[in-house]
Amino acid sequence: MSRYAEFVSNNHNQNVEELKELLRIPSISSLSEHKEDVQQAASWIADKLKNIGMENVEVVQTKGHPIIYADWLHQENAPTVLVYGHYDVQPVDPVHLWETPPFEPTIRDEKIFARGATDDKGQMFLHIKAVETLLESEGKLPVNVKFCIEGEEEIGSPHLPQFLAENNEKLSCDVVVISDSDMWDRGVPAITYSLRGLCALEVSLKTANTDLHSGMFGGGVQNANHLLVQLLSTLHDSNGKVNVAHFYDDVLELTEFEKEQIQALGFDEEKLKQQLGLTDLTGGEHNVPYPERISSRPTLEMNGLWGGFQGEGTKTVIPNQAHAKITCRLVNNQNPEKIQDLIKRHLEEQAPQGCTVSVSLGDTGNPFLTPIDSPMIQKAAEAYQDVYGKSPVYKREGGSIPIVSDFNQSLNAPVVLMGFGLPDENLHAPNEHFNLENFDKGILTICSFLEQLKS
Amino acid sequence: MSRYAEFVSNNHNQNVEELKELLRIPSISSLSEHKEDVQQAASWIADKLKNIGMENVEVVQTKGHPIIYADWLHQENAPTVLVYGHYDVQPVDPVHLWETPPFEPTIRDEKIFARGATDDKGQMFLHIKAVETLLESEGKLPVNVKFCIEGEEEIGSPHLPQFLAENNEKLSCDVVVISDSDMWDRGVPAITYSLRGLCALEVSLKTANTDLHSGMFGGGVQNANHLLVQLLSTLHDSNGKVNVAHFYDDVLELTEFEKEQIQALGFDEEKLKQQLGLTDLTGGEHNVPYPERISSRPTLEMNGLWGGFQGEGTKTVIPNQAHAKITCRLVNNQNPEKIQDLIKRHLEEQAPQGCTVSVSLGDTGNPFLTPIDSPMIQKAAEAYQDVYGKSPVYKREGGSIPIVSDFNQSLNAPVVLMGFGLPDENLHAPNEHFNLENFDKGILTICSFLEQLKS
Repeated sequence: MSRYAEFVSNNHNQNVEELKELLRIPSISSLSEHKEDVQQAASWIADKLKNIGMENVEVVQTKGHPIIYADWLHQENAPTVLVYGHYDVQPVDPVHLWETPPFEPTIRDEKIFARGATDDKGQMFLHIKAVETLLESEGKLPVNVKFCIEGEEEIGSPHLPQFLAENNEKLSCDVVVISDSDMWDRGVPAITYSLRGLCALEVSLKTANTDLHSGMFGGGVQNANHLLVQLLSTLHDSNGKVNVAHFYDDVLELTEFEKEQIQALGFDEEKLKQQLGLTDLTGGEHNVPYPERISSRPTLEMNGLWGGFQGEGTKTVIPNQAHAKITCRLVNNQNPEKIQDLIKRHLEEQAPQGCTVSVSLGDTGNPFLTPIDSPMIQKAAEAYQDVYGKSPVYKREGGSIPIVSDFNQSLNAPVVLMGFGLPDENLHAPNEHFNLENFDKGILTICSFLEQLKS
Repeated sequence: MSRYAEFVSNNHNQNVEELKELLRIPSISSLSEHKEDVQQAASWIADKLKNIGMENVEVVQTKGHPIIYADWLHQENAPTVLVYGHYDVQPVDPVHLWETPPFEPTIRDEKIFARGATDDKGQMFLHIKAVETLLESEGKLPVNVKFCIEGEEEIGSPHLPQFLAENNEKLSCDVVVISDSDMWDRGVPAITYSLRGLCALEVSLKTANTDLHSGMFGGGVQNANHLLVQLLSTLHDSNGKVNVAHFYDDVLELTEFEKEQIQALGFDEEKLKQQLGLTDLTGGEHNVPYPERISSRPTLEMNGLWGGFQGEGTKTVIPNQAHAKITCRLVNNQNPEKIQDLIKRHLEEQAPQGCTVSVSLGDTGNPFLTPIDSPMIQKAAEAYQDVYGKSPVYKREGGSIPIVSDFNQSLNAPVVLMGFGLPDENLHAPNEHFNLENFDKGILTICSFLEQLKS
């Protein structure tokens, strides 16, 4: 990468100044008083994309905030990369905890402080600068590049899936690259190659046609709380495994290489227990190591539970209904709708005598996995090696980012999550910042990645 | 009883007119705007007691509404009866559902309609009239009689226990008689000889020091809802029995006579199932008949249950705390404090790994039982036989009336609950009434009871 290093280094101050311009725009997508600011940030990016030489730049209006599209498609036989990012930011409360104002970007200790510095204006901007670097240095890009930058990520991307569905051909690509995640540690890059999916259910259990007085009926009639406890206690076995038939059928087991990776990364159990105030970490499957349980194994969690009287004091009521909210974290190749059906059937079959159990189905989100040994991941790894002098850590995240699998499934392309943030950069919190040591390196890594893709 | 029948019959109209006077006073104890009315009702009763020849009549002020005391103690070697009743009434809402105004007593179909007609002004007044009848006819009473009439029963008798404790000697007696309950049916008298006691607990289960995100920690750490479900599922066995060690140790089993009584009374299971909208009545102990379960057996009910998210939609939270409210209905000779301790110990011992379980203790109330074959119950039965020509039904009620066991324990005297109401007299509801067929018969039954006590 040395051949672009000088160019990037020479432009460092100018590039940082440009990022500051973008960071000054308070594009908070959740607050309607910032609607104009969000629009302004979109225009700023569209202009920037035009200036660096991207073509067909569009600011696509939605019912919410706009999506920016741009492309450069002059390498007929080379693959096409789609870059996704977002230019909207989180609110800034509590604003008094910021050392410098959130929309006045300030550099301290080689970090740039501002809302959006790392999530995601800063990281998204690296791709713009990488494309500029290549176009300025070579007059062309090694591969075809498309940009799809949205302004609603922080409010759940309500209009993006429809945009993907309606623009399937326009967005078609060989790989999607997203920089909206973390490195493993200072100097240690990371590729997040798996995210968990999600499905939600709510179960309601009803007994009599009204709450009943425990003096008149106590000991005689069914108590909805008792029956719900009985029903929910069937959902896990004594080893912490989910006790629903066929729940694990489609779970892709970790490869030996993945297990070694996870083990090699280590895990400070004592530190975590202290942080959480727990004496042990005994959720989930007892025979699976903690780092695997929270990233590579599916779960069934009761997020909410309620029935009867919750007020102060005593009420001698026999409740006639009780409820539970359930979500599962899912892993490849589990299908969220199939898992919902399995759980619904389980709850209905295990329904205790003398009550009605009804199960309603909620949100779903697919799990995401790009295998470590897939070519796109390996090219990203080579790019990191090239710039950081170090192989990246391969990370599975336990959370769910539905748009990642939306891209994956909608465009039928692998997604590579190349994070340049650091874990302590306060995203969503006061004093958000981005470490400038990853600014030039990030640009160069993306340049390298695009070059790797050519070969 | 024929020798007083004529006297009572001759005075019927006058007696009903006097009751109407009392019923016209809107002595609603729960509403502060009726404080003067409650006071006025107390004065009315005190005057009445003086007029019929009771002595040492006092209107004892409390921090709430007054308690009326009176006595007649001129039968040195005869037993002493304490009459308890109350002159306060429930509110009248929804007042538009009353056919005639609640404080304008009206007679229709040989029933007197007014708030308090059966609960308890009407029933309490029968005792005043019985004493008057005996004093007018005989110039003396067959036994010693004390009255203790309170004005706070409908708000939970907050000042009565203290009054009992502080006036133990003054109130000492051989039997307490209370008419504030029901007959079995028209023409079929009943004695309620048992009430269940009560104890309350609340259990809180805590895991981590904060709610956790199921994406980051799901499958790794304890979920308070799961552990609470696991804990609560240990409280009953598969036969519906309470699964707490020693819970049943002190339960007085029903005698063969009691079982026969309960069986003889019959029970329309189909009708009840239809009324409650239940396909079966499978609460409590599976091997105990329904009528026994709701009256003669102790229970453990989860009145409330909550943990985590209860709002609309989905929240992928791992709750760090979950709670349950529990009450038990208790029977003789269970001790509420002992049962609380047993349950507390059970919950603490069964606490799942990796959480903190804390149990707080709530209200308690003793169960009440005066054995059917006790002399006082038998004398009351003879009085009913005398007047109604029929043995009373012996009833166990599943509810709890703490003041009944307060009298029982504080004064160390048996309590006899001689009800003259009918089950459909709308107490606490619009169109409360009292059937006048039980007015003269009630007075005569009490006269007979007092005479029986002498022998």
